[in-house]
Amino acid sequence: RRRHPITEMLDLAFLPFCAFLGGLGFLCVALVSAWCQHWRGGFALDGSLKMFNWHPVLMVTGMVVLYGAAALVYRLPPTWRGPKLPWKVLHGALALAAFVLAVLGLVAVFRFHNDHGTPNMYSLHSWVGLVTVLLFSCQWVAGFSSFLLPWAPAWLRALYKPIHVFFGSTILMLSMASCVSGINEKLFFSLKNGTTTEYKLLPAEAVFANTLGLLILLFGVLVLGALARPSWKRPEGDSLDSRQ
Amino acid sequence: RRRHPITEMLDLAFLPFCAFLGGLGFLCVALVSAWCQHWRGGFALDGSLKMFNWHPVLMVTGMVVLYGAAALVYRLPPTWRGPKLPWKVLHGALALAAFVLAVLGLVAVFRFHNDHGTPNMYSLHSWVGLVTVLLFSCQWVAGFSSFLLPWAPAWLRALYKPIHVFFGSTILMLSMASCVSGINEKLFFSLKNGTTTEYKLLPAEAVFANTLGLLILLFGVLVLGALARPSWKRPEGDSLDSRQ
Repeated sequence: RRRHPITEMLDLAFLPFCAFLGGLGFLCVALVSAWCQHWRGGFALDGSLKMFNWHPVLMVTGMVVLYGAAALVYRLPPTWRGPKLPWKVLHGALALAAFVLAVLGLVAVFRFHNDHGTPNMYSLHSWVGLVTVLLFSCQWVAGFSSFLLPWAPAWLRALYKPIHVFFGSTILMLSMASCVSGINEKLFFSLKNGTTTEYKLLPAEAVFANTLGLLILLFGVLVLGALARPSWKRPEGDSLDSRQ
Repeated sequence: RRRHPITEMLDLAFLPFCAFLGGLGFLCVALVSAWCQHWRGGFALDGSLKMFNWHPVLMVTGMVVLYGAAALVYRLPPTWRGPKLPWKVLHGALALAAFVLAVLGLVAVFRFHNDHGTPNMYSLHSWVGLVTVLLFSCQWVAGFSSFLLPWAPAWLRALYKPIHVFFGSTILMLSMASCVSGINEKLFFSLKNGTTTEYKLLPAEAVFANTLGLLILLFGVLVLGALARPSWKRPEGDSLDSRQ
């Protein structure tokens, strides 16, 4: 790839960026857990609001942080040479872990709704969130079938790969929109007293959770930026799957 | 660019895609206007809820549809040859129009809040939305100064261009998250009767506005996909700004 010498000179180093991103991801998980623990009563498996609290924690951990880690596997320079199979397995395993957490996060909210006679799937947040998880399940199955199982011919892999890459970024964007709308909705639910919206007074919890929302967006934007950065992409020199 | 023959064969044509995207953008503007007109009482400039109704219409039209059109200017094949300056002016003018609509959309909501004694800038929706518009204002000023005014040296333009491209996509993603959280929040505000949330019963308005939210996401994802598609990018053969 031809690049301008100044761009080359100022190129960011990938590994310090990764360390920062890892710290930011850890911070997002810590903040969403602290929010639910400190202001929303903590965690339980009893169908109460304490069960609901698993929903934001599992969704942020699975659909944002672990998902972002899975997406960036092939940006690690050690993956650029040697056998590709172990890295494929790592990519698929991280994505599977993210998916399992997301499903558990859905169980938490459906169980809470059902135990309280609240309808499921009415808000735009729930529609966007479910579309995100459904797309992710298709993405995982199609990725596993095409790139890890040995039967798929090279032309099918070559055809599907840009589609997999496109939906990889798309699902993360949808996760970000789901998180923002979910945190916003939860604060309107929680920070009210009868018909008075206490959210409007911007108490400490609101500042805390709004900041969490912005940090989740920052994490997602940085992952998407790293994925799009040409000089960080795995060189395509060797045939796509010759080593599988 | 080397591309797999099968990918080449199945490449989507840009112009039919553009026609579809234009139709989808028009549909988004029509649906958000119809929502505010039919269910939310229509439009006025009197500081009432009818003034608020300009907010979603102007934001969707400016920050999503016009913004998307501005972003895609350099993907039009006629921009790939001949003088670049007219296309730069078109790109900047569409972005400026989008920005003006966004500012008017902010005026509508601030005026509504102020006339009703409602605090501004407390919800996560408002934080994400304001960050989006502020980033957009920086992006426009920096783009105009670097690429349209004649003083910027070629090395500065080359350095800034990937940053401008990155923030171009980032701002659209943030717009999408702002729209989803805003529509979700508005439906919780509007579809309630005392402490009863009628949104839960999924009336026609809820289905209509939730669908609008999904269509806005589809529009944004398609714009971002078109921007990322290597074969649709303007070839970088000639020096970045030799014709300015």
